[in-house]
Amino acid sequence: LSGIKVAILAGGQGTRFWPISRQTKPKQFLSISASGESLIQATYRRMLPLVKSSDILVVSNVAHKPHIEEHLPGVQIVCEPIARNTAAAIGLAALHIKRVSPGAAMILLPADHAVSDEERLRGTLKEAVRAATARDVLVTIGIKPTAPNTAYGYIKRGAKVDGDAYKVSRFYEKPSLERAKNYYDSPDFFWNSGMFVWRPEVILKAMADFMPALFEGLMKIEAALGTPQEQKTVAEVFSGLESVSIDFGVLEHARNCEVIAAQLFGWNDVGSWDAWAEHFTRDQSGNMVYGEALLLDASNCVVNSQSRLTALLGVDDLIVIDSGDALLVCPRGRVQDVKKIVEQLKKLGRGDLI
Amino acid sequence: LSGIKVAILAGGQGTRFWPISRQTKPKQFLSISASGESLIQATYRRMLPLVKSSDILVVSNVAHKPHIEEHLPGVQIVCEPIARNTAAAIGLAALHIKRVSPGAAMILLPADHAVSDEERLRGTLKEAVRAATARDVLVTIGIKPTAPNTAYGYIKRGAKVDGDAYKVSRFYEKPSLERAKNYYDSPDFFWNSGMFVWRPEVILKAMADFMPALFEGLMKIEAALGTPQEQKTVAEVFSGLESVSIDFGVLEHARNCEVIAAQLFGWNDVGSWDAWAEHFTRDQSGNMVYGEALLLDASNCVVNSQSRLTALLGVDDLIVIDSGDALLVCPRGRVQDVKKIVEQLKKLGRGDLI
Repeated sequence: LSGIKVAILAGGQGTRFWPISRQTKPKQFLSISASGESLIQATYRRMLPLVKSSDILVVSNVAHKPHIEEHLPGVQIVCEPIARNTAAAIGLAALHIKRVSPGAAMILLPADHAVSDEERLRGTLKEAVRAATARDVLVTIGIKPTAPNTAYGYIKRGAKVDGDAYKVSRFYEKPSLERAKNYYDSPDFFWNSGMFVWRPEVILKAMADFMPALFEGLMKIEAALGTPQEQKTVAEVFSGLESVSIDFGVLEHARNCEVIAAQLFGWNDVGSWDAWAEHFTRDQSGNMVYGEALLLDASNCVVNSQSRLTALLGVDDLIVIDSGDALLVCPRGRVQDVKKIVEQLKKLGRGDLI
Repeated sequence: LSGIKVAILAGGQGTRFWPISRQTKPKQFLSISASGESLIQATYRRMLPLVKSSDILVVSNVAHKPHIEEHLPGVQIVCEPIARNTAAAIGLAALHIKRVSPGAAMILLPADHAVSDEERLRGTLKEAVRAATARDVLVTIGIKPTAPNTAYGYIKRGAKVDGDAYKVSRFYEKPSLERAKNYYDSPDFFWNSGMFVWRPEVILKAMADFMPALFEGLMKIEAALGTPQEQKTVAEVFSGLESVSIDFGVLEHARNCEVIAAQLFGWNDVGSWDAWAEHFTRDQSGNMVYGEALLLDASNCVVNSQSRLTALLGVDDLIVIDSGDALLVCPRGRVQDVKKIVEQLKKLGRGDLI
């Protein structure tokens, strides 16, 4: 396979990872291994058997650029002046890739997801590249659900096209638990992984059809690429864009969508501290410690304590996360509400802590 | 009243106040008020309407001297080279007081207790001074129990002598809950507050009778007081002493013991983080915060967070104490076991954290 480019989408916020994640240092910079490798570093490294490092670019908010440079020295960075969701970020990436590699397949990867079967991931992406380039279609990687998860969007597959490639019957937003159970029981529903493959020309054509304002803005940017006006033009265009996801703005309307029905072991979007902890070994009492902790009569707890010793005594199912300047204590069942703390801090004017 | 000296016994360890309390900075340096006043500062200040500041001395382990000087600038400090429990500390204080004020009454106060009715405390101590000087007796301040507390020793009063002064019928060690309930129901049982009043000559005589080895050591120290050999002699004597409390070593044997049966509002020995928290105002959900915290769906929690923001989400009855270099999380029902963490850290060779 030739002509593959990878764009890593590093625009996430990760307010559910407070207090470690911050506006200026979001979730993709978190580590999910004892080696200390961050999510974005792992995302990058996983692609290296597939493409050269010069074929990888990162789309990032300008505020995160220093952290990207620290985690991925030398990587090509395309900066967004402000966050405008995935449609705008993908449009910007498509312009850059089209300019240097017209007709190439672009693989889009969220910077902050985890996957354990890396070899199979690359195989799945290769199949997606074949589908995208053979038929000029918009390919989403679908993942066979391993649980009735309500935190993911779903894709229903339609007619089989070739190998694991199917027409998309429909995209579904995050479901209720009841619906998620029905999807889980069906052979035709797959998690929407947020990983996509297409030619830049094909997605730009779809944007022209379904997001004409975005497309018009992108054309202005394209005209300015490589000129002294580039940065100023991007800033002007982005400030006028709506914040729309690629799924909602384009894929749900396009007719040329396919899904690769993948059985991808150990994929998840690391959506909470509880999900984060699943990537680490637990002790005999089910506790997971990242950093330094002393546990007495503690079970099924999660500790992230990098800058001091944390002692837990007689507690169960508790999450304790210490960022140095802030501390979070909550039960494992409340991890989805951590974002409420961030909202509260925002109301209190504590910009230093969010 | 004249001829009153006060000796504050500041030898406590306070391992139940880890991680704030440490070997080199024990419980008496903790604050129990929003003003930041420490327990030892409060103990000192409470005596100032009764005696001049030059009449107060502090008996302290040499390791704690810098903290004493910081909390009580200019105070007279008598250093113990090593901790040898209250009998030795009181003997040492008696020598110093006898030397400058023979025949004075000495008031002995633990440095790390709390009391809210300070005026009544001074009244009680005055009555104890009158008893101690009128009859050359060993006076313990007994406190009318307000609960069947199992963390305190008890005193049973005997025949009334004068005012609130009674002969001591017997001293009791910390009781079982069942016994504590019986004591609580009786009019004759009082908490042993650890506050004592006597003339130095009277307690030294009792030591000669019941702790002859201690007395012999004290006589060696007395001969060396004010000479170049003083420090060396104290070090030699203390290293050979048994670690015995004044109650066990002397008072339980002496015949000339009296108890002042006091109704002292708001006295306690601040024996745990839970007891510490009782000295502060709670919010409507029963939470007590010392420092900075953000509480969402939290109730009846205790937070001591001086150096960072602590966020509690969806937790109840939890204690969270942050010392900067260590963090404690435990339920309120487990505060008595905090000392186990200190023991564990000792085993692990973490002298830096104990």
